[in-house]
Amino acid sequence: MPSPEFFQVIPVADALRLLEAQWQPQPARETIATAEALERILASDIHSPEQIPAFRKSAVDGYAVRARDTFGASDALPAFLSVRGELQMGLAPQADIGGGEALLIHTGGMLPESADAVVMVERTQATAEGEIEVLRAVAPDENVIQAGEDVEGGALLLARGQRLRPQDIGGLLAAGCAAIDALCHPRVGVLSCGDELLPPESALRPGQVRDINAYTLGALAQKLGAHPVHLGIAADNPEEYFRRAAAGLADCDILLLSAGSSVSARDYTRDVINRLGRPGVLLHGLAIKPGKPTIIAVCDNKPVIGLPGNPVSALLVALQFMPFLVARFAGQPLEPPRSVRARLAQRVASATGREDWLPARLREQGDGAPLAEPILGKSNLIFTLASADGLLSVPLNTGGYDAGAEVEVILF
Amino acid sequence: MPSPEFFQVIPVADALRLLEAQWQPQPARETIATAEALERILASDIHSPEQIPAFRKSAVDGYAVRARDTFGASDALPAFLSVRGELQMGLAPQADIGGGEALLIHTGGMLPESADAVVMVERTQATAEGEIEVLRAVAPDENVIQAGEDVEGGALLLARGQRLRPQDIGGLLAAGCAAIDALCHPRVGVLSCGDELLPPESALRPGQVRDINAYTLGALAQKLGAHPVHLGIAADNPEEYFRRAAAGLADCDILLLSAGSSVSARDYTRDVINRLGRPGVLLHGLAIKPGKPTIIAVCDNKPVIGLPGNPVSALLVALQFMPFLVARFAGQPLEPPRSVRARLAQRVASATGREDWLPARLREQGDGAPLAEPILGKSNLIFTLASADGLLSVPLNTGGYDAGAEVEVILF
Repeated sequence: MPSPEFFQVIPVADALRLLEAQWQPQPARETIATAEALERILASDIHSPEQIPAFRKSAVDGYAVRARDTFGASDALPAFLSVRGELQMGLAPQADIGGGEALLIHTGGMLPESADAVVMVERTQATAEGEIEVLRAVAPDENVIQAGEDVEGGALLLARGQRLRPQDIGGLLAAGCAAIDALCHPRVGVLSCGDELLPPESALRPGQVRDINAYTLGALAQKLGAHPVHLGIAADNPEEYFRRAAAGLADCDILLLSAGSSVSARDYTRDVINRLGRPGVLLHGLAIKPGKPTIIAVCDNKPVIGLPGNPVSALLVALQFMPFLVARFAGQPLEPPRSVRARLAQRVASATGREDWLPARLREQGDGAPLAEPILGKSNLIFTLASADGLLSVPLNTGGYDAGAEVEVILF
Repeated sequence: MPSPEFFQVIPVADALRLLEAQWQPQPARETIATAEALERILASDIHSPEQIPAFRKSAVDGYAVRARDTFGASDALPAFLSVRGELQMGLAPQADIGGGEALLIHTGGMLPESADAVVMVERTQATAEGEIEVLRAVAPDENVIQAGEDVEGGALLLARGQRLRPQDIGGLLAAGCAAIDALCHPRVGVLSCGDELLPPESALRPGQVRDINAYTLGALAQKLGAHPVHLGIAADNPEEYFRRAAAGLADCDILLLSAGSSVSARDYTRDVINRLGRPGVLLHGLAIKPGKPTIIAVCDNKPVIGLPGNPVSALLVALQFMPFLVARFAGQPLEPPRSVRARLAQRVASATGREDWLPARLREQGDGAPLAEPILGKSNLIFTLASADGLLSVPLNTGGYDAGAEVEVILF
């Protein structure tokens, strides 16, 4: 019988610092269509191949004119201009204007050579066939968008590291950048280990359970914008576990190991990880509940997290690390999770020296902060998470919270 | 020359209420693999086909015992039990215990018939070969998870309308639900109209611009979890516009029309929409800048939004409606957008009676609220949005904000 395990437990924040010091991500890059690049991270600066707009255009519906022909115009004393016709959209001007002349132009239409301003249609009145009265003077360049006014040719459009939003995709396409270099999504491998585990589509015999960690952790990775890789289930055997973990690490950027519940697997997970590459295990034991027996490692410049086999613990620990790992992989700042302020429905006790994470239901209370009802009881039941609206943290050096205390509930 | 258009402008909130009253979404449903159902909405209640756990199991590493054999045990006066062997993970117990006997069991292991409690390994001491001292009594059912304790067979697992999170996927898979009925994503069609428009991969001749609305609006739809459908570019011709809009509406759940900049297209967009189905146009003219000439319609129980052709206006108006439309399609509550409190770097003027939306850059200011710098100037340049961190609203009946005012900046 192996002896009980003892851990020197380390707070999550310290674990993140250790990972930060030991892991210098080197994400791969790929060329992809800009139109399909939503949320992708630019791998390089992008300079505009063209100027935008490409030509001098009207900002309004109205008449292209020479501004000096309108100087002094007013309601009482309009300027009379002769209309030479209408400029077609999508074509270079087929005509130009001379002194005292105007061309009907639409918003976005290209100005003819000799026009230097546009009079808004609302500031004109049609008179005899082919003539308008201009009721207000325009200054040179008024209602005109200059070529290159939005972006000069060669200008920096978007910088390396930018996460592409709808407007960025629009800007890039407007400038003629139909493809970009983007960082590849991190590949997050999940390998489970345990003789009792079967793939989730299996019928069970007594003593067997379905391995759901690959799917909860994979879905979390997907939600964070990473690419989950299911590495399957290893039998409870150190050599098989090592062989499959090593193959998984070679194929992925981040490796999550979810050791089966058997004591022996827990015993050798640490050794298996240390064999995967240097520096190996950075810490074994987190000051967090659930999740204490977690292993944090970096092997060959890839993070490896040894998670508890229990699905609830595994997911709650992964929530502490995965957002950080995925953000750091892409060189992005870590976004704070969505959360709401709530009032605790009941007292919550906690030991100091560890951070407790409790699932909680939120109940709206009219106008005030919602009520947070911690879901207590056995922490290893997956439906305590499925029935929760969020997570409540009792921080490291807090003995607990009284009923009615204001707390932050992280929505998840 | 058509006369200037006049609108009776309506606030966005009223427009949303009109849509709510006139549109009763009827989303299609499809059967999909639970493992691939992240963020999908359940189309029906799900009851558990099995109980979880399927068998009575140990919550700890230790010894399966009959609780009464440990009553009165303490450090000073341990109970001696004879160990009959080890229970293998993943199998039904191959042995049972009698009085004074114990079986080594691992976390998650199945309890033998006659055991009713588990003594944690830390509360025992190995003595002679095949014997342990139990140093603390256990009560019946202590450290035991009962069959069905997480979920009873037939119990409601998750209700219709639930958006699936990683933990929900885990719970469903644990219970053996490998497939679910989910709502289909709304199909959001975008049709552009204008003779000056070319697909974004095109080289341009003078007077032409790339149609980027299909991609900014499509990316916004994608970001919201909808399925964008590019309906292409219609020539500035009412019959072609109608024909393509009608085909698009038949194929989609929500239709966005982005009329070219030409006056004539703007004139007939309203008629085209009214021909698409009843009740047709609900309003023409929003109390919002940019975006005033927007048309809101419902045709054959599908929302149709006639957006300005200008990419900035089109995207800003779409931001006002698309989150609502996508949430309502799926019967989900509208989530508030992510935002930060910031201080205005400069005075912002606005007319009362309309809501102004200004792109803004955020500049961190040490510990305090960040500084919001409105990006002023011509509002029709897409890079004013690409260079913005967020949007600043000056509400309907506010004349503007002074420099230093605290404002909410919506991150987008």
